[in-house]
Amino acid sequence: MPRYALKIEYEGSKFSGWQSQKDQLTIQGEIENALSRLESLNPRIFGAGRTDAGVHATGQVAHVDLSKPWDPFRLMEAINFNLKPKPIAIISASEVGTTWHARFSALKRHYLYRLVSRRAPLTHQKNLVWQVKYPLDLKKMREASLFLEGTHDFTTFRSTICQSKSPIKTIDSIEISEHEVSNGLEYQFLIKAPSFLHNQIRSFVGTLERVGAGRWPPQKVKTILEKCSRSSCGPVCSPSGLYLTNVIYPEDPFYGKF
Amino acid sequence: MPRYALKIEYEGSKFSGWQSQKDQLTIQGEIENALSRLESLNPRIFGAGRTDAGVHATGQVAHVDLSKPWDPFRLMEAINFNLKPKPIAIISASEVGTTWHARFSALKRHYLYRLVSRRAPLTHQKNLVWQVKYPLDLKKMREASLFLEGTHDFTTFRSTICQSKSPIKTIDSIEISEHEVSNGLEYQFLIKAPSFLHNQIRSFVGTLERVGAGRWPPQKVKTILEKCSRSSCGPVCSPSGLYLTNVIYPEDPFYGKF
Repeated sequence: MPRYALKIEYEGSKFSGWQSQKDQLTIQGEIENALSRLESLNPRIFGAGRTDAGVHATGQVAHVDLSKPWDPFRLMEAINFNLKPKPIAIISASEVGTTWHARFSALKRHYLYRLVSRRAPLTHQKNLVWQVKYPLDLKKMREASLFLEGTHDFTTFRSTICQSKSPIKTIDSIEISEHEVSNGLEYQFLIKAPSFLHNQIRSFVGTLERVGAGRWPPQKVKTILEKCSRSSCGPVCSPSGLYLTNVIYPEDPFYGKF
Repeated sequence: MPRYALKIEYEGSKFSGWQSQKDQLTIQGEIENALSRLESLNPRIFGAGRTDAGVHATGQVAHVDLSKPWDPFRLMEAINFNLKPKPIAIISASEVGTTWHARFSALKRHYLYRLVSRRAPLTHQKNLVWQVKYPLDLKKMREASLFLEGTHDFTTFRSTICQSKSPIKTIDSIEISEHEVSNGLEYQFLIKAPSFLHNQIRSFVGTLERVGAGRWPPQKVKTILEKCSRSSCGPVCSPSGLYLTNVIYPEDPFYGKF
């Protein structure tokens, strides 16, 4: 059976997350529904990252085995036709080897978190960012973020229901940038790692926001990291600002594709 | 009665346009509803531009007379509180003189049109841009747009229900830029003029898109402009890509405000 890699974009605010669940609207479930109209076998897909309810993606990757060969472009078009009008789209597709695995072949994941600071309510970006109404201090957030880079026991920043075997992870980098938006500022957190714990990024950003708001000194992030205690973490922030933007493989399966 | 200028942002896709209409959801109507909860007089507001159904704004301006003085920041907060959760927000407010008029004091209007060319359906930007599925030629669109700058009889690019006394208008500039988006390209048309005819920008962009798609030669835009005939115009394009971004006054009433 030929195997296909799919690059997937979605607006997650109306979905109960990536993973198929009975009687719930999920990204995986909707794509599998669309595929079941192309194949009698009810194909299953395997995603690189299981995003939570409300989380978005601009570069999720999944693979699927199909019973007959497809031209990848036609496959993308056929799935997108069957996904309409849901806010999920296959933005690239490629045939891969049968040992290639969207999750296990992945080397790195990149996530973006968008946090907007402005007084007036948002209109165009409502479910696409997390908004706070007060100013934030970029320098302090950057200073605090340095404590989270590298290899650590991240028990403090891990959901109690996290299924990872070990709380030890390596964060390659956290880059925070500031952008002007209409009567406010947007802070973009670009976070790269081989893999993440459950709720790790939302725990990071919820904590860094406390620092940016001036409620916690940057040094406190070092202290709570070292405590290895979930109850020391800042509030887990909204899923609405989180995007899975990129999954890195030894070779990019979508290189040179539409 | 003190007069206040309001800077207004809205996501227009669920509204029947700016102007109040009986039994219709309109931007003006919703802001007047919110104001009527602050004042017993049922205040009326006057906008700088009457945007159509589905059109957005990031910098609409209106003025209102109120029976008692307000701190402008508190006025903004109070209106926004009463607008919730509708995608309309006052992003700045200022007291102005009683002869200042949002529409008649305005010198220039700036509009932005966002046109995305990509094969896969859009997810995050669905009602915020106009999408076509084929490539567009930036150079040809720029070449054609030059014919539309300057002072002309724009009968060709004017809705048959336009109420303007004269079809003669002056377009200061049309700047077209190209931006990369996920697996596609976005074309932004920034159009500046003292004022516009009804449907003029959507007629411009619908025509320039025909040129970009290679269906019409750039020179044809000159020919149809000179014909002064509505039936020669390209298709009027979707309101979903259009934004009123800025209204220019002799002095910026919002200068230095939040």
